[in-house]
Parts: sequence; structure tokens; C-alpha cells
Amino acid sequence: MPEFLTLLPPLEALNHLLKNLEHPRPALEWVATAEALGRVTVRAVPAPEALPPFTRSSVDGYAVQAADTHGASDSLPVYLKIVGEVAMGAAPDFSLQAGQAAVIHTGGMLPEGADAVVMLETTQPARGDEVEVLKAVAAGENLLVAGEDVTPGQEVIPAGRRLRAAEIGGLMALGVLEVAVAKPPCIGILSSGDEVIPPHDTPKPGQVRDINSYSLSAVVLHSGGAPVRLGVVPDQPQALRRAAEEALATCDALVITAGSSASARDLTATVVDGLGKPGVLVHGVSVRPGKPTILAVCDGKPVIGLPGNPVSALVIAGLFVRPVIERLLGLDRPPFLAALQARLTINLASQAGREDWIPVQLFRSDEGYLAEPIFFKSNLIFSLVQADGLVRIPPEANGLALGETIEVVLLQ
Amino acid sequence: MPEFLTLLPPLEALNHLLKNLEHPRPALEWVATAEALGRVTVRAVPAPEALPPFTRSSVDGYAVQAADTHGASDSLPVYLKIVGEVAMGAAPDFSLQAGQAAVIHTGGMLPEGADAVVMLETTQPARGDEVEVLKAVAAGENLLVAGEDVTPGQEVIPAGRRLRAAEIGGLMALGVLEVAVAKPPCIGILSSGDEVIPPHDTPKPGQVRDINSYSLSAVVLHSGGAPVRLGVVPDQPQALRRAAEEALATCDALVITAGSSASARDLTATVVDGLGKPGVLVHGVSVRPGKPTILAVCDGKPVIGLPGNPVSALVIAGLFVRPVIERLLGLDRPPFLAALQARLTINLASQAGREDWIPVQLFRSDEGYLAEPIFFKSNLIFSLVQADGLVRIPPEANGLALGETIEVVLLQ
Repeated sequence: MPEFLTLLPPLEALNHLLKNLEHPRPALEWVATAEALGRVTVRAVPAPEALPPFTRSSVDGYAVQAADTHGASDSLPVYLKIVGEVAMGAAPDFSLQAGQAAVIHTGGMLPEGADAVVMLETTQPARGDEVEVLKAVAAGENLLVAGEDVTPGQEVIPAGRRLRAAEIGGLMALGVLEVAVAKPPCIGILSSGDEVIPPHDTPKPGQVRDINSYSLSAVVLHSGGAPVRLGVVPDQPQALRRAAEEALATCDALVITAGSSASARDLTATVVDGLGKPGVLVHGVSVRPGKPTILAVCDGKPVIGLPGNPVSALVIAGLFVRPVIERLLGLDRPPFLAALQARLTINLASQAGREDWIPVQLFRSDEGYLAEPIFFKSNLIFSLVQADGLVRIPPEANGLALGETIEVVLLQ
Repeated sequence: MPEFLTLLPPLEALNHLLKNLEHPRPALEWVATAEALGRVTVRAVPAPEALPPFTRSSVDGYAVQAADTHGASDSLPVYLKIVGEVAMGAAPDFSLQAGQAAVIHTGGMLPEGADAVVMLETTQPARGDEVEVLKAVAAGENLLVAGEDVTPGQEVIPAGRRLRAAEIGGLMALGVLEVAVAKPPCIGILSSGDEVIPPHDTPKPGQVRDINSYSLSAVVLHSGGAPVRLGVVPDQPQALRRAAEEALATCDALVITAGSSASARDLTATVVDGLGKPGVLVHGVSVRPGKPTILAVCDGKPVIGLPGNPVSALVIAGLFVRPVIERLLGLDRPPFLAALQARLTINLASQAGREDWIPVQLFRSDEGYLAEPIFFKSNLIFSLVQADGLVRIPPEANGLALGETIEVVLLQ
């Protein structure tokens, strides 16, 4: 399992991994729609009823029979007899005949016999119980027709859709108070490295605290997964294998951050390859940072070996861990990535044939955003704390030029 | 309090509101750093110690005294005596003299006496306990020096910063296990309208279910606030006033969705204006949808009156509710808005002098994203469910042209 025999481009590597995952069947749970923000549907939701449930006025004015208003104008108004007012929240207790009008407010229920609403602004009070109509309306004008938004039985939300504010509101409008969503997939996270200790311990000389378990938990959570931190294991094959097997027995996927030496990384790859079939699919990706990435599927479960350097681990988690969680959630399409257009403040060189991701700080200027690259070392986590986003240098480029407009993917 | 006397542009209206809010003092709570994703710091965090805590190798190779390697090349290698191997996670139990080298792994602690590391790739095994160095290194080369990432006492995270994966990781690296963050501001949400009923009730003819309380709760939650749904009040001044006063007694801000008729909106404005000083600041914004928006500060607390139409309410919540919550959280700078560049698939007309927000569906094409406007009515919530984002037509434009590259703000 030595690394770097063939380096796949990141997107190809991801597709190779996803291709080897069976069609995911996310576990289902019912949650209150009001609490379902960000959750992903596992079944299409049909509308149990029509929306709006009755024909409503979309303006303040007068319910009328449109035919009565034909030819109405400022100079030749039509006079209609006001026979009532539609109370909000109730069915009108009258119906409309030819030559009649009824006061109606926005959202009010159209009385029987009426087929349009004249806007208040195109009317004028007349003597007695009459109103002057100054402009003709067509049948259906200024109405929201029953079922115009949604008809009964219509699929209003497909399976695999992440619920946003609009979906929550729409489901409540239909009285759909509970919704079947994917249980957050359980993502086991293991850190390895003889030098790594839990953050609540005080490092002795030569020791450092575990960063990756926590930063990766945040990525998992943000992507809709349930992180399970499994602690730190030493760089010993038996210990790593035992911990990984235990993780896969209960979790839906496993993320391991390898020790940072080449021998520790090879150890991780060997252990991962023995966890199940088909085993390691990709060992080495043409990306910087993150070349020593390991992608595997072991008996149906994805296993991702991330570089131990904390900056590399976070960048690579965005490229591989996030899409794997989205696949496990059953998302019906990849989400649109939050990104900004910005102009680069310096020239950036890169090696052709390799995809580079460079952390940048963003500044607002009169001509839009400026992106200032941060010179980082992939083992210094605070270089990423400085960054607002990442810029991708595509493999076919030799770099990016000062002043060039580039896309900055926001860090979450 | 009649609406629309002067229509302010949205940004001006927002600034007017924020100017009237005193400097926020968010309530503080301590939370476990590992659980603090998305929370906002209320105090700057200083580093309690250096990072890295000791000088480490950044490569696999040999720790050396750089002076020993001067002049080393493939044809004229330097021979050094291997005196030991640095174990990961421990201080070396030896120090290095001139003419000596020690095996070291990435992340290993530099032994005393050494001042650089030679990469494994530029060495060759030699006879006995010697190594051939094929390339000179300078002092400091291939090292992460103690304190290079962070020095003790350095402010590593300012007050008012939202914690992302990188910050969580960085704080754990420093052993900062708890962090002082802003308590989510309590945002009361009131729906008004005689026709509006709670979603768990079955609407009678003329009645519709409450949408806005739920869609706006989602916006509040997504922005970092704590939504408190206060239910539906009828369009009666006393009832609305009592409910609003009770809300302001316990909440940090109040959002009211007005009934959709002009009289209901005027009633809301009058009630809001009586809740405290200075009262209503803005009544009417030059934006579509959302013209009848009310912005107020009542005895130090922001009160926002949103249009009752669910699409308008959601669009306007993004323009006003979100930034108000960010202000209450004490964010040190406005967040960068997630947006995409896309090409418009049709011409879009608009009225100059007014800012328009148009829902669009996004499609991927070989030349990037395409944005297809959705013809919506602001009272049909499912027209927003269809949308991936919103396109802004600026007030100075008469519209946007087919093929034009535009910014699409993603809906959350």
C-alpha cells in the first residue's frame, strides 16, 4: 500500500470513491417540521390539501363580477352597489349578483358569484352604498386562485432535499407537522500519532494536543453528520486496526487522520486496506495541501485517511468528507458551494498538473472584494484561522495573476 | 404612522436602524470549545502558551548542525555519524555534536545541539552508522520553530468572531477548553392577522395557517439567534400591544409580521410606535417585495415589522432580521455573504429607483451556472421553495439583460 504510485485529481478521486459506495439508504427519523431546519428529506412530501385552500384577494378593494366593469374608465366610471364586507378569516355570508360589489381586504375569501377584485386605488366612493369603478378588470384579476400555489397530492418537496426556511414555512402552511428526514450519519473520527495527546492533558516535551478530532468534528457537524470522536491511537498496527474495526462496527463512515511521517501514513493505508472489501481505492491525490490522502470503501462503508497536518486535514475534509456525508444523507444533488468573486492582490505560482488550495483573507474595496493569499505552513493551524476562504488553482494553470478575478470558497 | 411617506433604500434603512441601536452588550456564557461551532466570541482569546510548544521537524530526515552540511552535493556528499533516533512524542535523550546526525520524523522534537533537518530524499545510507548528506541545509531549514504559529499572550481570536472549524481546532491545540461566547439573542416572533391560525388547527373557510412564525424562526436560528414563537394575535390594537409589550419584556428584539391589508399594516405601525422611544424609524422601504417594512427601536430594543406575505417576509428577513441579530451577537464585521455568479437566462425588467429581489433556480452548465428567474407571487410560499437563491436588481438599473453575469445570493 505505498502511497503516490498514481496521483488522481481530487474530483476524479472523489468520483471513484462515490462510485464504489452503494446507493445510500439513510436511516429515517420523524422530526417536528418546526425543528427540521437543515435536515434532509428521505421521502417526497405530497401536499395533503390545496394552497391557498380557497380563492383569495391579493389586494385591498372590491370583489366584483368582471363583466360589470367592462369599459370602466376615469371619465366613464361604472357604479356598483356595495352589498357587504368580507370579514377576514371567515367565509362571506352573502353571494354577489350582477351589478354588486363587496369590500374585500388582502387575503380575504372571494364571495360566491364574484370572479375578480378591483383595486381600491382604481375606485372612488360614490353616493350612498355605491362605489365608482374607474378601471375594468378581467375575470381572475387580483386573485390567488384556490390551488394556485399547490394542488392536493402534488409532490411539494422531493426526497433528498435539505430543508431551508422556505420549506419549513411551506410545510407548516399545509399542516404537515412532521417530516421524515435522514438520521445524521454517524462519522467516527480517529486521530493517530504517538506524539498526539487529548487537549485536556498537558503536553510533555515532544507532545502536541489533538487538533484534528475537533476541527473535523466541526466539519462533520456543519455537513449534517453526527461526529463521534474516538480519541487518539498510537501508530501501532494492532491498536489502529482494533480502533478502526470498533468504529466501523457502529459508525456509517470513518475518518482517520494519519500520523504525519511517511511510515505512519503507510501504516494507516495498510490498516485501512485490511478493514474490508474493496479496501483502499485511492492513495495519493494531486492536490496541495493533502497529497497523502487515502480513500477507501470497506464492506460498504467509506473510510477516509486524512493527512495529519491540521491545515491539510481541514482542506481535504472539504473536498472529500463533506461530499461523502452528503451522499450518506441521500442529498438529491450536490449543494451550491458558497463562494465569492474577488480580485487577487498578488501573483500566485503553482505547479501545473496539481490542484492547489491557498488560504486567503478577504477585504472589501470600492471595486468589490480583494483576496490576499496567506503564506501558510500546513502544520500551523492558526494560518487557517486568519483565512476567510480558499482559492483553488486548477491543475491546468501555472498560477494565478495579480488582479485576476477568482472564486473564493468561504471557510465554514 | 401612515406608510410610504418616504421610501428609504434598504441599505440606508438598515443603517438608520443600526445607528439607533446602542452598542450591543451580548450576554456571555461559557461553553465547551468542542461544542462552540458557529458561536460568537465576546472576549478576545489570548494564547496561554506557544504553538508549536517546541521546535519540530517538518519533514522526515536527519537532524543536523547546518554548518556541517555546507558544500554537500551529490558528487561531494558530507558524511555524518548517526547517534540516535528521535522517538515521536518524547524529548530526545541525547544532544547533537558537530559531525553528528539523528533520525527524525515529521513532527519530532529537534534534539539539543541541532539547528536544521536534512530531508530523507537528499540523503543516502552509508556504511556503518553513517549517513551521506547530498545537499546543504541552512540553519532553521525544515523546522517549525517553537512559537512560530502563536506566541504566549498573543491574541489568537478577537472578540466578535464566529467560530469555525479552524478556530475550534486552534483553541483545542492551545488547551483552551472553554470559550466565552454570546448567548443567542432572544428574538420574539409574533404573527398577526384575523385569518391566521396555528398550523396544528384545521382551517375553516377563510382561514389560513401561520407560515411566517416558522419560516422566520428558521432565519433567526440560522443567523445565530434564539427564536421564541409567540403565536398569532388578531388585528386588534389592544391585543397586539399587549402581546408586543410582553415580548419586549423578555426578548432582545421583536419581529412582527403584519396582516396583509393596508389597514392591518397601519395598525401594526401605530402599535410598534407606541412601544418605546424613539419608536418607528422607517416605514416603507424602496424594495420589492417588502415595501411595507417597518423598522423601529423601542427603548433600546429593535422591533421589525415584516410584510405578512410569506415570500416578502423571508426576503426582508434576510435584509434586516439577519443583520440585526449579527449586531446583537456583537459580530466584529459583517459576514461575507454566500453568493454565486451565474448568467441570466432571460431579460428582467424592473422599475428604476427601487431595489428588486427575484427568486431564481440555478442550473449547472458547461460555462458555469445559469440563473432562471421564477415568476412568483409574494403570497405563494412554494414559489420560494422552488428557488435556489435571489438576484438583486439594483435601484439604479432598469432591469438585467439575458446573458448578463449576476450574483445570486443563496437561500438558506
